[in-house]
Amino acid sequence: MNKSHEPLSLWPDRRELGLATDLYQLTMMAGYHAAGLGESRATFELFVRKLPNHRSYLVFAGLEQVIADILALQITEEQIEYLRRLPQFQAIGSGWFDSLHSLRFQGDVWSVAEGTVVFAGAPLVRVVASAPQAQWLETLLLASLNYPTLVASKASRIVAAAQGRGVFDFGARRGHGPHSAFLASRASYLAGCIGTSHVESARLLGIPPIGTMAHSWIQSFESEVDAFQAFVDCYGERSTLLVDTYETLEGVRRAAAVEPPIRAIRIDSGNLLDLSIRARSILDSADRAQTRIVASGDLDEYRIADLIGAGAPIDSFGVGTQMITSADAPALSMVYKLVELEGKGRIKLSEGKKTYPLAKQIHRVRDASGIIIKDIITQADEQSIGEPLLEPIVRNGRLVASLPTLESIREHARSEYESLPVSLRTLDTEASFTIEYSDLLQAEARRLGVC
Amino acid sequence: MNKSHEPLSLWPDRRELGLATDLYQLTMMAGYHAAGLGESRATFELFVRKLPNHRSYLVFAGLEQVIADILALQITEEQIEYLRRLPQFQAIGSGWFDSLHSLRFQGDVWSVAEGTVVFAGAPLVRVVASAPQAQWLETLLLASLNYPTLVASKASRIVAAAQGRGVFDFGARRGHGPHSAFLASRASYLAGCIGTSHVESARLLGIPPIGTMAHSWIQSFESEVDAFQAFVDCYGERSTLLVDTYETLEGVRRAAAVEPPIRAIRIDSGNLLDLSIRARSILDSADRAQTRIVASGDLDEYRIADLIGAGAPIDSFGVGTQMITSADAPALSMVYKLVELEGKGRIKLSEGKKTYPLAKQIHRVRDASGIIIKDIITQADEQSIGEPLLEPIVRNGRLVASLPTLESIREHARSEYESLPVSLRTLDTEASFTIEYSDLLQAEARRLGVC
Repeated sequence: MNKSHEPLSLWPDRRELGLATDLYQLTMMAGYHAAGLGESRATFELFVRKLPNHRSYLVFAGLEQVIADILALQITEEQIEYLRRLPQFQAIGSGWFDSLHSLRFQGDVWSVAEGTVVFAGAPLVRVVASAPQAQWLETLLLASLNYPTLVASKASRIVAAAQGRGVFDFGARRGHGPHSAFLASRASYLAGCIGTSHVESARLLGIPPIGTMAHSWIQSFESEVDAFQAFVDCYGERSTLLVDTYETLEGVRRAAAVEPPIRAIRIDSGNLLDLSIRARSILDSADRAQTRIVASGDLDEYRIADLIGAGAPIDSFGVGTQMITSADAPALSMVYKLVELEGKGRIKLSEGKKTYPLAKQIHRVRDASGIIIKDIITQADEQSIGEPLLEPIVRNGRLVASLPTLESIREHARSEYESLPVSLRTLDTEASFTIEYSDLLQAEARRLGVC
Repeated sequence: MNKSHEPLSLWPDRRELGLATDLYQLTMMAGYHAAGLGESRATFELFVRKLPNHRSYLVFAGLEQVIADILALQITEEQIEYLRRLPQFQAIGSGWFDSLHSLRFQGDVWSVAEGTVVFAGAPLVRVVASAPQAQWLETLLLASLNYPTLVASKASRIVAAAQGRGVFDFGARRGHGPHSAFLASRASYLAGCIGTSHVESARLLGIPPIGTMAHSWIQSFESEVDAFQAFVDCYGERSTLLVDTYETLEGVRRAAAVEPPIRAIRIDSGNLLDLSIRARSILDSADRAQTRIVASGDLDEYRIADLIGAGAPIDSFGVGTQMITSADAPALSMVYKLVELEGKGRIKLSEGKKTYPLAKQIHRVRDASGIIIKDIITQADEQSIGEPLLEPIVRNGRLVASLPTLESIREHARSEYESLPVSLRTLDTEASFTIEYSDLLQAEARRLGVC
């Protein structure tokens, strides 16, 4: 049992994502093939069943990544050999395994744009493909959209609470595995953060990388003064000095005395309101009015709102754990459901999990000033007032949309936030958003027995 | 702003993980170099500051992955060019950038074994390396250990609550990004789950893959009866049929009538206690005593304990969202702190975040029957009663330990759970575990001013 082996990284190559899926997708794929449904045209829709606690809207995010992965999705020779050997598949004929060699996604994907504010019950992504291909995408699609949407939604609240002060993503170490930090840097930036501490995300995405120093830097020198000076000798006026390693206000005094004057100090513990007020006063008295105050340490939208409400002279916030884990709402009930097969509506009646039949469209209705009034869900091709939100991204397995840059998604997210009714923008809202289903859709749902 | 571009996958190659770190690690690395501390021997320790809510112990997990990644860690040419262009590094001489080409981790890593039950305040990993190299690992180490430990700890509770009934990992779609599912499959399996729905994890790790069918399978046929029959035609006695798509008990009756008799039914919604009792009765009356009942649908340890306590005849549980996100405790306050530099103890006094100086060891003290009594934290080389838990894994950048197989880690985790005092095994424990610091360690801490 204890024989030695090379340590396994468990960081697969992208080419191996074709089996990053639930087994039942493959079981069903083989089953559709055997049952003669392998070419049946299926429409699946992805939506959020219910908003998580403490959320009155979501910011949709993660589309670009999953589109890139879907376009490259395949199953390798080695993976096919593994499947052939599984006891589950012993009765499956060799034809199905052979067909996996050339399996690529050849269907259509429609989607809401990233950065759009969205609500429970509305279809965010629509996949039209052969039943097996549509099934194949399910797990990857959900895993790739669930989390960025969760983080972008949390970040949007945090950025709003900061009222124009900068918010940095400091979460990399607390994410659910090292990969989540990549997704979170992007999702939090598109929702309004102004930078990330995660260097590789910053590099790949063109996000401003942000960083100060850790306590270990201070601890590595004989005194705090030596540590500050050594850092400033390197980084000059760009320096941000961490002042709370030993005694915070003493640290502030030392940071205020350093030459040249530094860009900022960072306070990472203690009573941030009290300490920031005293720090501001020390800095101002030392002719350091230009030196900014950065706060960090388990911050979230509520603590930031409280600090700003109480007049804390904090210029920017580094937010880690609470944002990267969306700690007060760490899961999103995003699902992917069959709604149409060969042109006929499909439903499900499971308790608390009913779904509406047929391919759909969201029509967003706004008032004259652009504020969102309601979403009307219609059949896909139905005429309606309001702007349709689902647009074609992939057709027959090829990208047909011009994907926006991250900067333009960020700009879109900002304008979307501003178009929310004020009642949905408060941190602890009881207000809920109106989603209507068109008469045609309701009639079809009733006809099929959805109450 | 809207110019078209190829969609970015944001799934980096393993060779690019060298910058999957916080910017301040690099800032400090360059700073140590400039300040003449580039070769200073530093000891960092990784520990959990405080147990999360609802946890009385943790199951340590994730070591093998991070060791594999550390051994391969490097910084690519392209990444170095990116750093050279960052405004932050404008004053840094070219020598430091040049040195990054050959940067590899050449230090030592000591660690507790995976599967070991651990507590707040005790050092779980010790890194001894040059200050810059030790700093370089911080973010990756925390991101790689935090999450698997969180999931293994949650899974351990869920498995305990199931009292010997099987628990499957069904979480892939709800993880924080598609990569987290790999880590979670492994962490939940080592903590006692009996399989995972995630095929690629199963393939890479040798975990049993598990799967049934989705509602979409049922919806794809003209009737539930047709759907059941088509599946059984493929998978025969191995079939597990999902019975709650339309009307659950009617679904059970239909599943009970299928030939050949099937392995199991799955109920995914509704009142699981009531439905499982009625389903059992229907199955038994139909001469289907061998057909098992699998339950799923937002389960966690509390719901499982309640179901079993109330006598629900459920044979196994599929657990998704709550386990893969560790939803009631989605973050772990795992930190990595400098404790020694060039043989001298280092401390930090930040409010609520004090650390003990010097390289340390955990000595675990057990009673005659093997039950854990307490952990004594000592200086690294201090003699003490109890079994030392930190063992050398990497020396001078090379693997020196024989890493256990996943099966033997799982066996170790089981025996560890059984060695917990009963007071720590209840789901809602108020009991806490005793960690003692040796006299020598306390004296040194006092000498350096840690209260």
